[in-house]
Amino acid sequence: MSHAAASQRLGSVHSHLQMSPCAAQEEPRVKTPMESMSEEREKATFDVRELTYYLDGGEKFTKVREKFMMELERDPTFRMHDMYDLTKDQIRERTMEKFRTIVHYVSAEPVPIFTMRMQTISLIDPGFWTRFGVHFGLFFGALRGSATSSQFSHWVSKGALALNGMVGCFAMTELGHGSNVAGLETTATFDEASDQFIIHTPTITATKWWIGGAAHTATHTVVFAQLIIRGKRYGTKSFVVQLRDPKTYTLMPGINIGDIGKKMGRDGIDNGWIQFTNVRIPRTNMLMKHTKVSRSGDVKEPPMAQLTYGALIQGRVAMVVDSGNISKKAVTIAGRYAAVRRQFSSNPLDVQETKLIDYAIHQYRLMPLLAQAYAFHFTGVETNKLYDALMDQLEGSQPDDDGLQEVIETLKETHATSAGLKAFCTWSTLNAIEACRQTLGGHGYSAYTGLASTYNDFAVHCTWEGDNTILTLQSGRYLVNCYREALAGRTQPEGVSYLNHMDSLLNQGCAVKNSEEILSFDIIQQAWGVVTANVVKKAGDDFEACLKQGMNPEGAYEECSQARLAAAKIHSFGYVFRRFADAVKNAPEGLKTVLTKVCLLYGLYSIEQNAGFFLQYRYFTPSQMDYVRAQVNVFCREVRQEYIPLIDAFNYSDYMINSPLGVYDGNVYQKYFDQVKRQNPVGREHPYLPMMQTLLTRSIEDDEPLEDDDDDDE
Amino acid sequence: MSHAAASQRLGSVHSHLQMSPCAAQEEPRVKTPMESMSEEREKATFDVRELTYYLDGGEKFTKVREKFMMELERDPTFRMHDMYDLTKDQIRERTMEKFRTIVHYVSAEPVPIFTMRMQTISLIDPGFWTRFGVHFGLFFGALRGSATSSQFSHWVSKGALALNGMVGCFAMTELGHGSNVAGLETTATFDEASDQFIIHTPTITATKWWIGGAAHTATHTVVFAQLIIRGKRYGTKSFVVQLRDPKTYTLMPGINIGDIGKKMGRDGIDNGWIQFTNVRIPRTNMLMKHTKVSRSGDVKEPPMAQLTYGALIQGRVAMVVDSGNISKKAVTIAGRYAAVRRQFSSNPLDVQETKLIDYAIHQYRLMPLLAQAYAFHFTGVETNKLYDALMDQLEGSQPDDDGLQEVIETLKETHATSAGLKAFCTWSTLNAIEACRQTLGGHGYSAYTGLASTYNDFAVHCTWEGDNTILTLQSGRYLVNCYREALAGRTQPEGVSYLNHMDSLLNQGCAVKNSEEILSFDIIQQAWGVVTANVVKKAGDDFEACLKQGMNPEGAYEECSQARLAAAKIHSFGYVFRRFADAVKNAPEGLKTVLTKVCLLYGLYSIEQNAGFFLQYRYFTPSQMDYVRAQVNVFCREVRQEYIPLIDAFNYSDYMINSPLGVYDGNVYQKYFDQVKRQNPVGREHPYLPMMQTLLTRSIEDDEPLEDDDDDDE
Repeated sequence: MSHAAASQRLGSVHSHLQMSPCAAQEEPRVKTPMESMSEEREKATFDVRELTYYLDGGEKFTKVREKFMMELERDPTFRMHDMYDLTKDQIRERTMEKFRTIVHYVSAEPVPIFTMRMQTISLIDPGFWTRFGVHFGLFFGALRGSATSSQFSHWVSKGALALNGMVGCFAMTELGHGSNVAGLETTATFDEASDQFIIHTPTITATKWWIGGAAHTATHTVVFAQLIIRGKRYGTKSFVVQLRDPKTYTLMPGINIGDIGKKMGRDGIDNGWIQFTNVRIPRTNMLMKHTKVSRSGDVKEPPMAQLTYGALIQGRVAMVVDSGNISKKAVTIAGRYAAVRRQFSSNPLDVQETKLIDYAIHQYRLMPLLAQAYAFHFTGVETNKLYDALMDQLEGSQPDDDGLQEVIETLKETHATSAGLKAFCTWSTLNAIEACRQTLGGHGYSAYTGLASTYNDFAVHCTWEGDNTILTLQSGRYLVNCYREALAGRTQPEGVSYLNHMDSLLNQGCAVKNSEEILSFDIIQQAWGVVTANVVKKAGDDFEACLKQGMNPEGAYEECSQARLAAAKIHSFGYVFRRFADAVKNAPEGLKTVLTKVCLLYGLYSIEQNAGFFLQYRYFTPSQMDYVRAQVNVFCREVRQEYIPLIDAFNYSDYMINSPLGVYDGNVYQKYFDQVKRQNPVGREHPYLPMMQTLLTRSIEDDEPLEDDDDDDE
Repeated sequence: MSHAAASQRLGSVHSHLQMSPCAAQEEPRVKTPMESMSEEREKATFDVRELTYYLDGGEKFTKVREKFMMELERDPTFRMHDMYDLTKDQIRERTMEKFRTIVHYVSAEPVPIFTMRMQTISLIDPGFWTRFGVHFGLFFGALRGSATSSQFSHWVSKGALALNGMVGCFAMTELGHGSNVAGLETTATFDEASDQFIIHTPTITATKWWIGGAAHTATHTVVFAQLIIRGKRYGTKSFVVQLRDPKTYTLMPGINIGDIGKKMGRDGIDNGWIQFTNVRIPRTNMLMKHTKVSRSGDVKEPPMAQLTYGALIQGRVAMVVDSGNISKKAVTIAGRYAAVRRQFSSNPLDVQETKLIDYAIHQYRLMPLLAQAYAFHFTGVETNKLYDALMDQLEGSQPDDDGLQEVIETLKETHATSAGLKAFCTWSTLNAIEACRQTLGGHGYSAYTGLASTYNDFAVHCTWEGDNTILTLQSGRYLVNCYREALAGRTQPEGVSYLNHMDSLLNQGCAVKNSEEILSFDIIQQAWGVVTANVVKKAGDDFEACLKQGMNPEGAYEECSQARLAAAKIHSFGYVFRRFADAVKNAPEGLKTVLTKVCLLYGLYSIEQNAGFFLQYRYFTPSQMDYVRAQVNVFCREVRQEYIPLIDAFNYSDYMINSPLGVYDGNVYQKYFDQVKRQNPVGREHPYLPMMQTLLTRSIEDDEPLEDDDDDDE
């Protein structure tokens, strides 16, 4: 029963609403949204700017990011306010317009800086980010990774890097084939007489499908096909095929292409399907860095197939980083709105309604997501470092190098870790986006408040570049192997170090006697260690039992797949917590107190959400679980105290957030209203007036015969 | 390394793909998608048709539903294949075209039959369902529920029922106010001199917002506003206000309306915002069935405010029913695709890849969702019955009736139950849709496969007509009250009957000694009873403790809100299981075996997902929880045996499913490809050719100055 936001009274001009600047004096006890926001900033006990620097890896990088944000905001091609209302064709056209701007930087900026630029762009326009990634990451990346050096020079000279006369796509998946690359049906048959390969789509299920850029923009593609020479199959290899004339965009002979059409999100990518009908290409269009085919059709296989994993890992690492970034964006929108939106009041004496964030349940909905955003941010940073180190190792080693076996071990570990984390972080982030969207109440359903499209754009991460379930199972398989290795006495790497002292861990219980003692990184880390060791042991023992029953290893893995899934999930929780805890330990002194709170919340909340495992393996007793629950509530309240400064530290400009409910100054209603009006101007012609007139002014006699049935009506 | 679906070989005509009918003979060991589907149907151990009749409530109703499905499929206005590609204006126009067809049936069909018609429509076009519901459920429903009989006759005579010269909307929520109806800011000030009310929007946050139908279609609205007479506020009441001239659609004086624009889903509804600037309406436009205002401005309040809850409950019950229906649709799509899609092989001797559904993990992803769809279906049926019984009671009782108190008790129970179930079922269904979507792999991201829009359309259920979190808290509050009543010795109603024997329940443990004994409805029901009693007790005790610390009840409820949330959630699990178990007990003999399996899976899987509570309150020991987990796996496999017949029993036609991956005959690839081609015809003009030409043929010298920086490039 309030006059909420009464300071935003209507002016006297009836057709236009304005805020009265002196309204606050008229009713001094009611706060404006901006005042509601400001008071949150006064609660900071730490230097927000210092935290931003720490998150970005130093002041230098913060400055670079801020430069990028400003450049994007001022670039008319990157205008974002109208994105939610564009048609599919309009978004696609704008996507390609952006290439011109960005291609300059590809050669002008060092890779780490350019990567930061692209990460910035990924936050506001994931569709463009992907289309760009299709050319530079997948198409050009395939050239770099799979072409010989002379092949690579050839394609660069044709314009593959400068995007001149050529833009590429990547034709791997088929209508009937996704994750199983070995099962692809498209064929590349060697014709020795002409020294050509014949690329062919033999069945409807072999149609290349989902190919980003194929529908309207790509002139060339790297196609994955079964290499066939003299009737013998050599497995899936990659080939460059021209699709279109770059001047006229007419299709080359034998190429049949269509548009995949509307998608859940990322409509800026013109995904298409491609059928090849006996398309001939020179033999040298096969990318031959690894497997080579000679003029006479002899095949030379590479010594080490694993070395091609690098590109896969890069995509997964990028998605872990994106999970952190998008989580921060979602929490910024939901968090700022919760500081301003008021509803009901638990105290009848209040003159205005209560802020959403002052409800315990709202804190419980949002604060763990804020903590998770921090956890994923630091995990992204660490995973990136792992990947860079791996690449350095790989580039520094030769096939006949002594150290290569060690590199391959690191590669296997990074591959499994990145697979599990990609799945874990993208799933958790997708859930977090939806949870944040729902905290906006009805307004979360508006396109303009931003989280609906964030969800739709992000959702694809869960199924592409390795379906999450399959990746999680792969990670679980790695854990089973590590467990068996550890049982055999071999020391396991840092990521699974809990397997190195299983004897002491497996039956360990927690000794804490009150809810204070549970507030310890060591206890939490031990808790995850014990539970993960048990869950991994369960998967490993199940696997062993299957082998003993006479199953082959593949059958045994299949049989224990649910245990593998659980193992990988629990492992990821512990892994992410450790990354967060490390980041807290390494943080500047002035940030340690607040980051410790956020990290404790993440650790305890994760335990609460997985209580079944901790009770099952008796690490915690039911009373100790009650301590955990009690402390989750305490730390939701603690973190809430300075949660707006914690969000501000993410340092996303209003342009980047692109949601009127997430604006920095808290003036949410005015900006939301302005946005809705700008995109849907009042007074435009009624779009379907004749139909409404026909409906409402139809002759009522038309309906009369039906009225005889009134007896049946009840 | 397979030739999967090799039977779908390309014909010799290079531009058109066809299936070769004799392919199966050429490679007899490889099954077509249709064969893969047929073999699933052979596994049925029950009569699918009999199950359909049971689900529908009898053969008679199945026939009615089938009649509706056929009528809709043949009605060109209800064509659905192009829905995913329509613009917002196009969808809205088509939405209103459908009114003409449907308005006939409003008066022609008995209410239960018409309700079934609308439920059928809700599955294929939720946007139309809602827009129709705005007029007939909300606008016309408000007239029926809140107008005096002479007022009601007046509006019917003006065309409110026949939709002639008038179409309505419902202006309750405001930009700054959602769930808290008492906090609305719009005012209705009585002007005694003119015998009029002045409807006015005093602030920007008072702007009516999200009003379905306001943007372009409604001519009238029921508006909720603060009744003010001689400076005194009497709370929120409802008033009929004309918005537009039904012939020209020009706005009435003082009315300012705009389009809310793009939404996450249901774009067929033209949601708008409305501002009233001193709009004068006759006093008699206030709906006066309950509160009355006389010519001289005297106010007469109704004796029983609760009696207006009925309409709220109806909306929630409809969403419980919708949850079941949409769950069945999602599972149909995901389930049928999983019977046909093949990927990898766990047996190297197989000539073709393995069906998705034959992977244990895929069974674990889908079978519990199938079980949940059944559980929600039966819950919807029962909730509907509860609601009908309540309405009968309400209509049969008078304000001075002796039995009224009893009716009000039933009303309170139904209100709390429907609130909790609405939240529980819509949340679970939204998750189920996304989970089903992800089981389609990459194809789930296509608009044409149906689940992306199903998600986007359904998501609004979680925040409208009572935000789910708030409803769950309300349900938790009811449980706390029941608990305290039970403590005071008063017998509680059936829905919370576990509170009537708390003493025996609270510390009860389970006695089963092996995984066979756990397969019992009684054990599962007792498990939920014990855990729910404990969780509700926890919330109740927390509440009591807060009161003892001197908090007022509102503060105490707020303080224990997380415990309330947990109590309501666990209560709902147990409630839904009981509804399912009852339906199995009442099923025809021939269906009992299969339904028992599905019900056991639902019960055990739900326990597994909430293992923390069962271990916390020591109903199950860790070993017994292992029995539960083991049996979940067993029953995933069991239900998988005849899961296609179980899906077929839902009896949705291909038209209703509207997804090429969910077609009955299993011919998914051909139909998916056909759909994509029909909606995106090959050979249409390149939509942004000039831009691509400009990009690819630009003078490369443009980029040259940047190349000086090459030294920095690494």
